[in-house]
Amino acid sequence: MAAHPDPKTFLDAWHPIVAGPDLVALPGVLSPRVSMGAPPYWQKIEGRYVVAHLLGVIVTTIEDFRYHREWIDGAELALEFTGHVGSLDLQGIDLITLNADNQIANLDVLIRPMNAVAKLQEIVAPRMMEFLKQRAG
Amino acid sequence: MAAHPDPKTFLDAWHPIVAGPDLVALPGVLSPRVSMGAPPYWQKIEGRYVVAHLLGVIVTTIEDFRYHREWIDGAELALEFTGHVGSLDLQGIDLITLNADNQIANLDVLIRPMNAVAKLQEIVAPRMMEFLKQRAG
Repeated sequence: MAAHPDPKTFLDAWHPIVAGPDLVALPGVLSPRVSMGAPPYWQKIEGRYVVAHLLGVIVTTIEDFRYHREWIDGAELALEFTGHVGSLDLQGIDLITLNADNQIANLDVLIRPMNAVAKLQEIVAPRMMEFLKQRAG
Repeated sequence: MAAHPDPKTFLDAWHPIVAGPDLVALPGVLSPRVSMGAPPYWQKIEGRYVVAHLLGVIVTTIEDFRYHREWIDGAELALEFTGHVGSLDLQGIDLITLNADNQIANLDVLIRPMNAVAKLQEIVAPRMMEFLKQRAG
């Protein structure tokens, strides 16, 4: 177990998971109590399996997803990405806080422009509803 | 004149300008050819006086504007902020590229959640339209 967060070890695991995407390995890089601030809502989404599912749906919905600038400051990371949803270009950033086990403790995802966020939500929201209903059922 | 970008010098000028806000000093920290990616639109806004005006309107519209995490990598900066527009909380990030004169060459502003971006646009867009009409007239 890591004594303190090591962003390089985390990024070596994270990049292939997102590039794959490797939805089986994805939950392993999330804290069991991970929280996520998604682009459309203020309220945080919480818990490994809900966040992993949401991230999986987002990553498979954004086309040509690619990381660019990367900032690291101890356990705090900022990762810029671009992609598109249909004909709508987008630019986003993952603001990540790692825990001592190199898992994501908190992830905030900010995306511009607004029409791309709305289009993404249009696709992602029904898939999340279905997932949450199945879990509840 | 600086031989290369010095983020600390830039931030020492930037923080009081935003905190003021000091709309007179604001254009001086922008390159004459500055470009800005605003939250609602994909297309960049260009030129010192249009960008300065837009930033001024945004900074005076967001209440309790406050910076938090700060990432620096050479000439590339990422500055997290929070605030609210009326009752709507927001979290945002300024992604800044400096030129050799410690001016902003490019600034992308990403904000979540979507309803705060929509509310901000509702207030900012008419003020920008008025400004652009006055410049054209």
